[in-house]
Amino acid sequence: MRTGQSHHFDLGPACLPDVLRQDMRGPDVADLASGLFEDMKSVLRCETGKVMFCPGSGSVAWEAALTNTLNRGDKVLIARHGQVSSRWVEMAQRLGLDVEVIDAAWGAGVPVEEIDARLGKDCRDEIKAVFVTHNDPATGVTSNVAELRRVLDGNFHDALLFVDGTSSIGALDFRTEAWEADLVVTGSEGLMLPSGLGILGVSEKALEASRTANMRRACFDFGDMLKMNADGLLPCAPPIHLLHGLRISLDRIAAEGLDNVIARHKHLAEGVRRGISAWGLSLVAEHHALYSNTVSAIRVPDDVDARDVLRIANDAYNTVFGSGQGPLAGKVFRIGHQGDLNEAMCLTALSIAEMSLYRAGAPLQLGAGVGAAQSWFAGAASGQPTFRIAAE
Amino acid sequence: MRTGQSHHFDLGPACLPDVLRQDMRGPDVADLASGLFEDMKSVLRCETGKVMFCPGSGSVAWEAALTNTLNRGDKVLIARHGQVSSRWVEMAQRLGLDVEVIDAAWGAGVPVEEIDARLGKDCRDEIKAVFVTHNDPATGVTSNVAELRRVLDGNFHDALLFVDGTSSIGALDFRTEAWEADLVVTGSEGLMLPSGLGILGVSEKALEASRTANMRRACFDFGDMLKMNADGLLPCAPPIHLLHGLRISLDRIAAEGLDNVIARHKHLAEGVRRGISAWGLSLVAEHHALYSNTVSAIRVPDDVDARDVLRIANDAYNTVFGSGQGPLAGKVFRIGHQGDLNEAMCLTALSIAEMSLYRAGAPLQLGAGVGAAQSWFAGAASGQPTFRIAAE
Amino acid sequence: MRTGQSHHFDLGPACLPDVLRQDMRGPDVADLASGLFEDMKSVLRCETGKVMFCPGSGSVAWEAALTNTLNRGDKVLIARHGQVSSRWVEMAQRLGLDVEVIDAAWGAGVPVEEIDARLGKDCRDEIKAVFVTHNDPATGVTSNVAELRRVLDGNFHDALLFVDGTSSIGALDFRTEAWEADLVVTGSEGLMLPSGLGILGVSEKALEASRTANMRRACFDFGDMLKMNADGLLPCAPPIHLLHGLRISLDRIAAEGLDNVIARHKHLAEGVRRGISAWGLSLVAEHHALYSNTVSAIRVPDDVDARDVLRIANDAYNTVFGSGQGPLAGKVFRIGHQGDLNEAMCLTALSIAEMSLYRAGAPLQLGAGVGAAQSWFAGAASGQPTFRIAAE
Amino acid sequence: MRTGQSHHFDLGPACLPDVLRQDMRGPDVADLASGLFEDMKSVLRCETGKVMFCPGSGSVAWEAALTNTLNRGDKVLIARHGQVSSRWVEMAQRLGLDVEVIDAAWGAGVPVEEIDARLGKDCRDEIKAVFVTHNDPATGVTSNVAELRRVLDGNFHDALLFVDGTSSIGALDFRTEAWEADLVVTGSEGLMLPSGLGILGVSEKALEASRTANMRRACFDFGDMLKMNADGLLPCAPPIHLLHGLRISLDRIAAEGLDNVIARHKHLAEGVRRGISAWGLSLVAEHHALYSNTVSAIRVPDDVDARDVLRIANDAYNTVFGSGQGPLAGKVFRIGHQGDLNEAMCLTALSIAEMSLYRAGAPLQLGAGVGAAQSWFAGAASGQPTFRIAAE
Repeated sequence: MRTGQSHHFDLGPACLPDVLRQDMRGPDVADLASGLFEDMKSVLRCETGKVMFCPGSGSVAWEAALTNTLNRGDKVLIARHGQVSSRWVEMAQRLGLDVEVIDAAWGAGVPVEEIDARLGKDCRDEIKAVFVTHNDPATGVTSNVAELRRVLDGNFHDALLFVDGTSSIGALDFRTEAWEADLVVTGSEGLMLPSGLGILGVSEKALEASRTANMRRACFDFGDMLKMNADGLLPCAPPIHLLHGLRISLDRIAAEGLDNVIARHKHLAEGVRRGISAWGLSLVAEHHALYSNTVSAIRVPDDVDARDVLRIANDAYNTVFGSGQGPLAGKVFRIGHQGDLNEAMCLTALSIAEMSLYRAGAPLQLGAGVGAAQSWFAGAASGQPTFRIAAE
Repeated sequence: MRTGQSHHFDLGPACLPDVLRQDMRGPDVADLASGLFEDMKSVLRCETGKVMFCPGSGSVAWEAALTNTLNRGDKVLIARHGQVSSRWVEMAQRLGLDVEVIDAAWGAGVPVEEIDARLGKDCRDEIKAVFVTHNDPATGVTSNVAELRRVLDGNFHDALLFVDGTSSIGALDFRTEAWEADLVVTGSEGLMLPSGLGILGVSEKALEASRTANMRRACFDFGDMLKMNADGLLPCAPPIHLLHGLRISLDRIAAEGLDNVIARHKHLAEGVRRGISAWGLSLVAEHHALYSNTVSAIRVPDDVDARDVLRIANDAYNTVFGSGQGPLAGKVFRIGHQGDLNEAMCLTALSIAEMSLYRAGAPLQLGAGVGAAQSWFAGAASGQPTFRIAAE
Repeated sequence: MRTGQSHHFDLGPACLPDVLRQDMRGPDVADLASGLFEDMKSVLRCETGKVMFCPGSGSVAWEAALTNTLNRGDKVLIARHGQVSSRWVEMAQRLGLDVEVIDAAWGAGVPVEEIDARLGKDCRDEIKAVFVTHNDPATGVTSNVAELRRVLDGNFHDALLFVDGTSSIGALDFRTEAWEADLVVTGSEGLMLPSGLGILGVSEKALEASRTANMRRACFDFGDMLKMNADGLLPCAPPIHLLHGLRISLDRIAAEGLDNVIARHKHLAEGVRRGISAWGLSLVAEHHALYSNTVSAIRVPDDVDARDVLRIANDAYNTVFGSGQGPLAGKVFRIGHQGDLNEAMCLTALSIAEMSLYRAGAPLQLGAGVGAAQSWFAGAASGQPTFRIAAE
Repeated sequence: MRTGQSHHFDLGPACLPDVLRQDMRGPDVADLASGLFEDMKSVLRCETGKVMFCPGSGSVAWEAALTNTLNRGDKVLIARHGQVSSRWVEMAQRLGLDVEVIDAAWGAGVPVEEIDARLGKDCRDEIKAVFVTHNDPATGVTSNVAELRRVLDGNFHDALLFVDGTSSIGALDFRTEAWEADLVVTGSEGLMLPSGLGILGVSEKALEASRTANMRRACFDFGDMLKMNADGLLPCAPPIHLLHGLRISLDRIAAEGLDNVIARHKHLAEGVRRGISAWGLSLVAEHHALYSNTVSAIRVPDDVDARDVLRIANDAYNTVFGSGQGPLAGKVFRIGHQGDLNEAMCLTALSIAEMSLYRAGAPLQLGAGVGAAQSWFAGAASGQPTFRIAAE
């Protein structure tokens, strides 16, 4: 039992309260981190492989995933159909990889058939890695990673499978081990926390690849990280506030039960979608099987500028929605429904969106969207969801 | 005047209270960041150049500094005499630079004369950059950057000057512009905050170099950053908790006055050093002109294991001191005295260190060190400090 | 400029962070309290008289108001038409006052005409005090205190005027000085804070009365309080957390502007009432001139039990509404809309209330109430409020 | 499993974060309070009787104890030898009790022999209550309540035993049931929290007395409280922040173990006293058997003004000590060592006190007091404490 204030004079005391003043090199930080490496595996649903933390963000973790497992000039296959995958293409090109892009519509899922065809032709296994976004927050599309795994297996193809799960892990059904994902990336921003901690799930196969990968890297080297993580250390100064935050997030997920968390996201997203449908608007996602349970990207009517919706929501109602990105700018706004969320919060979002759409010129009836969501949340709607949920 | 809770449905609500739930893409985050870029320049004491933020840590900012301004194979000159400079040597080698190391003792300052000699021989300006640690926290040594600038100028040498100020900026006298430092690195951990935000000061000359530098980099590209920063955006997801924290830190420094902050660090460090001297122990820093006002690295007697001191302090007294690093492991422990610190906190550190040393076998008289520091803090000591302070 | 942690060893350090560890006898607490006494007068809209704090609650402040200004057996006139006034009757009787009750319906305002008649008959000024609830949170009724003052003046009656403003001050138009209120009671719970600090506004006339009042009292004696308050002290241990909280509340009110705060409450309450009206339900308040802008008490349909509405809201939707009190139990539930509130929060309340009513059996159309409020908040409703607002 | 924000619209939302926004009438507050009533009994060491909460402070709880169990004109016996007992005398007189005072020196313990003699003469049991301060924070004296109980029993006297334990319960050995204390008063300020919640332990005998006691009281009536507490309710608006705080305090005490908490206070106080002794100063407490383990009241040398010590500590070192009260003003300052405290914090207090004494003119050697305490804390002092600890 420790009593009283703890004191820490490693570098010097900070101005923050309590736990945030904790010395980042103190032994209890190592204990904290060790538990997180282990418990994060439950959320990733993997038993083998390693979890690594990259202070920074999901993007920083992405860069580490690439530089640690691939070599300059390696061919990688990326389907580009959203913000995350566009960012990857650029990142991979910057790092000197030979990027082969399969373009699909923003709103489509990962084009499994085209990937199947391409892999079928790759007799000499020249493609070293295939990248897939499990959930794209810009389009509100959840892709079918299990199917992609089947395609890789059907082609007896050995490429590493890279998956972005930033807006899905801990909220949607994600199965690292069952899907044999090799490099899985998420971040604190997907786990009910501010951004600042990139999280990597690395398979044994990816670890094997990292032993010979020779791209230049400095801060985040898998070899260093394996060695340091074993002692509860990170390769650079640990963001202890986020380690404490992650402890709380993982405990909350465990207390609710991961399956229950996933079911809750499905239930709440269905309510949001019913509201959107009652406005007469459609989602960016092209097919109900692709609808994301963590974010809905909503197309505004042609004569409405989605930027006006965002501006009105912020200026008049103190509410921030997601903007349309890339080709969707001005045409789309987004409602995120990931994390520590309940029915009341979804209805708040819908009611503010409804007023903002109305004031931006959309021809909807105030109350209609909220009412449709309420019907679902009050058990008054038909038992069958209007839309089938992705990944069932 | 905004009232009531703000709501944000970009990606989804987080489980954190209040300001930390703020949407990381909301317009007020951009306003917040813009103010920070500007005000950070006062602390760096520069008017020209740019401030950039690299979410991650000081190390991540270091990697960005190297990859954005140098080219593979460039010759760089690094004096290795502490933990920071050792880390740099390794980082620069990993990134494929041609690293020329001038080794000096851990405890020495930057070896200005040897650098002078080396630069004098570099008639063809092959050395593209010189790296210097303004303050090394492992040794408690503050080097004379102004002198190094004079040496560069005396040799009419054009190398970029890289300076690590993680444990000095905002606490010691640091003059980016007067010293013509080109790449200055610090981080939130040096500004009374948890780690998680690397901070870069980049001179016009370094920006110029970055336009042709061709090392591979993905997340942190100066070109991207300049473009995004102009709109208050960061190149990856912003750690909003640290942006808010930095706002508070910069406001506090401004309220106290940077000159007063520096004088306070000097006054408090002198008290700590008088305590150490009364124990009959010596600092790692070889000369009083090198004594750091932010951290003191203390040599324990030969028959004492410094690890015991650390263990006793932590287990028995709930207090964390810094450990001896590299060649100093087991021989040294460190008291950090940087940040939001006052006399009482310094005396706490000394009193716990004193008991821990005693219990680990050091032949000191309990109360002697604290008493010497008290004499200084109570104005009872002679007006002249025992030790001359560095960088006067 | 103070730096570093403050230390306080008056009684002993507490386990709480930061400001809450502040020593309750330290000189800065006195400075804090002194500013609060002064600034609270702006919110009470008085220039003369005194503000006093009674740690405890509004009820504790009420007891202090009675015991300090009245004598055993004094006749007091109380209109009983809600929870607050019922509580007063009981409290005054317990303290041995001669309580004359004028009963009115729960839902009626203060019965000014009957009071006028009664005062008219009191030729010998036997009535020492008249009690009025400015706003009753159980019924959602705002009474006309200005009118009552006119009645007192019209009768040339000298009774002290006691006013409860717990659910009105800082949110509704309240004018201590203009209405010549002698004992005004509110509490931290009405000023965007948790309960724990009773606040008294005491007129010069009431102070005069206190000099001869001889009821027994121990902790809260006006004489003690005047003496101690002058030095920034409270008559018992100060709840420093609430003093800090009150500082923040008063600063926020000043920043928004008290008139703007009042207008905001009016605007938001109108939206809530439009929602209720769209459900086909009525308020407890008998007349639109009585509608409270801080709380709406809603009659449920006859065949619905209001307790079911509360239970469903809490169990299914994590939302707490106010219960029906006294004769209204089971027939009424209440939506509070006082404090740090915006449109989104009002819509959240309406949407959850709507679903809960629906599931409890009320024959309403989901979305109707929210839609009506949205029309108001989106500026789509007719410029004229459906209901005239009280106290205009 | 509850997820997402909770919403509460009883009176209206407050501006505070999270748990403090909790509705004070919500069902979970009742659950919280019920657990606290029960667990507080462990800290009081009683199994029978009742715990009651009086929002306000310990003083408010004292007033409630008196008005609920005694009748106007009842004779009560109070030994006056410190701040708490002086306050009682005044309070009891104000409430119309017939107060018989036995004066003893400030610094003496409760004068058991004189009380014994007085009770022996009270053949007709005219004395209805005896008041004792278990620990007086103004003098740093812990009185022997067990002995007083023996005296009451030896005289076969039936008086109620009132005990103030504000600065002892949860820190010193206190045994409500074993000592048959009838009215025990403490408050949140004694349990590692800010002031604001008075806590009463009421024996069956006191409850019996309350049924016929006829003093006037309004807010805090035992009858009301018994009824309401049974449902987890308080007689006035609950200070939910302190209820949550008390939950944390009680959990911490349980985790450390009450016996361990008591032993820690003894160990730490001994260190503080050794420091004081090394300064050549003496305590107000007249005998080592009276030394308090929660606060030390220190006599300064004759030619030193204790107010200077306080002023210097506050102005120069950001540290607050307790002032000398009543007859001790200017002659005494106090170091509190109650609560969430460890060795480092005691040494901080001593080192600041030492410097402040020195600067105020006390002829002490800087370091001497800290060194003596360090010897004790480092296990370097002789195993026997210099002073025998009270209540062993």
